[in-house]
Amino acid sequence: MKKLRAVIVGYGNIGQYVLDVLLTSPDFEVAGIVRRDPGNSPDEIKKYQVVKSVKELKDVDVAILCTPTRSVEEYAKECLALGINTVDSYDIHGGIVNLRSELDKTAKANNTVSIISAGWDPGTDSMVRSMLEFMAPKGVTYTNFGPGMSMGHTVAVKAIKGVKAALSMTIPLGTSIHRRMVYIEIEDGYNFKDVAAAIKTDDYFAHDETHVMQVDCVDDLKDMGHGVNMVRKGVSGTTQNQLFDFNMKINNPALTAQVLVASARATMKQKPGAYTMIEVPIIDYIYGDRDTLIKKLV
Amino acid sequence: MKKLRAVIVGYGNIGQYVLDVLLTSPDFEVAGIVRRDPGNSPDEIKKYQVVKSVKELKDVDVAILCTPTRSVEEYAKECLALGINTVDSYDIHGGIVNLRSELDKTAKANNTVSIISAGWDPGTDSMVRSMLEFMAPKGVTYTNFGPGMSMGHTVAVKAIKGVKAALSMTIPLGTSIHRRMVYIEIEDGYNFKDVAAAIKTDDYFAHDETHVMQVDCVDDLKDMGHGVNMVRKGVSGTTQNQLFDFNMKINNPALTAQVLVASARATMKQKPGAYTMIEVPIIDYIYGDRDTLIKKLV
Repeated sequence: MKKLRAVIVGYGNIGQYVLDVLLTSPDFEVAGIVRRDPGNSPDEIKKYQVVKSVKELKDVDVAILCTPTRSVEEYAKECLALGINTVDSYDIHGGIVNLRSELDKTAKANNTVSIISAGWDPGTDSMVRSMLEFMAPKGVTYTNFGPGMSMGHTVAVKAIKGVKAALSMTIPLGTSIHRRMVYIEIEDGYNFKDVAAAIKTDDYFAHDETHVMQVDCVDDLKDMGHGVNMVRKGVSGTTQNQLFDFNMKINNPALTAQVLVASARATMKQKPGAYTMIEVPIIDYIYGDRDTLIKKLV
Repeated sequence: MKKLRAVIVGYGNIGQYVLDVLLTSPDFEVAGIVRRDPGNSPDEIKKYQVVKSVKELKDVDVAILCTPTRSVEEYAKECLALGINTVDSYDIHGGIVNLRSELDKTAKANNTVSIISAGWDPGTDSMVRSMLEFMAPKGVTYTNFGPGMSMGHTVAVKAIKGVKAALSMTIPLGTSIHRRMVYIEIEDGYNFKDVAAAIKTDDYFAHDETHVMQVDCVDDLKDMGHGVNMVRKGVSGTTQNQLFDFNMKINNPALTAQVLVASARATMKQKPGAYTMIEVPIIDYIYGDRDTLIKKLV
């Protein structure tokens, strides 16, 4: 069997977990790793081709973009134009339709495939949300996150003056309402009360119940665990009170990486274009023979 | 907007709920109802064309097969050969690969589409099971059914001599182990103890914990509610202990009917051939504009 040759673009937290998933996936091999500073790489990746640009690599089937969300479009366009499929876990919900439309043009022009927003939310949560939508078309779905660290909120806290280190935890209160628990270390010369007030009025926090706490060492609190509880009460036909819920307690970057690799696999089976996860048949994400999978899973 | 013209084949329990769902679906209209004895029909369907054969109807886009599982293949082949797409909720897990292969030939030869085993298990449960498989490829998924009435087991009890009326309830004990609670009325001249012993040794019950109880009126116990609890503990990459569960408490025929109609919609968007639900993009099951759905659900 010819293995799929995947390149990891960006070797941060997600990139490291993607490498781990690729090594446990029977149908993939590592074509290389793209980093801004290839010379300054950790020992565990020295056996791979570590390069500054994807152009330096040969025979790449798919690029797994593990860059910050805001760089996804640029890197994806570059790869697609080189004839390389892409997957990313772009996570700004409001920007997804536009990113899809942009990458769809580049992908079609270059006979390549892109699967975007392939994480767990957006991503697999979106798939479950969409299933519940056709199982009970009338009703409300609540997506409750956590407890777990929010990357976006943590970055927002770090940007506030006087914050030396920060961690923002998302605590689910039900019906899509969340509490923010913010743990910070303070820069010398700043006053905790003032910094806490600034955080609470920041647009990221102003709409939620937010508690700010000063700690000696933020790093000691960090844990990659996260969770989701998705609930729908809806109507099938005219039958009321159809009840559904989906829950998970997971290592966040490990699940994101596994979904990215599954999506990389699925790019090989789609027609040229850009797709969100709900536009791709579920079976295409799974490794294995079609009839065997149907027999086992249907 | 041109509406999809659907025919209901078989007007039993599921057929009645499918009619209800079609009437609440903005993109469908009822093309007719096929029954063995059209003359002897309930008042609520007299405003529709009730016919003995689907051949008597015109401009049918899709046939929703609400017949017993064992008749699915025959009816599906007849419809597909007439240029009509089909959906069914064929539920014999061991026969799905073969049914798909059989209908795939007929569908491709007649430029039509069939989506098979479109209920909740097999069906939407299969979709969730398949998602969990790529989210955590190593691990075990347990599907726990109930509490709810098992149609198959109820039919099996009714076939045993001395049983006048029966109801077999499935009770989940976890890790895919189930208890069978069987309620029966006894024919005159039969002994409860003998009948109960015959039920417990029947192949449908011999492998499960089974309790048989005699009641005055089985009908008084009937309730269409059912449930599922699907659990997976698995591994993403080399990260252990990824925890997932999916639960629902639903009206059984209402959900089956809603899934059948969603699948009927999806048949219109596939290339000719036969598919299980895990082979069709989730978005194709949902009514609405693609960009609007992506914006709302992803």
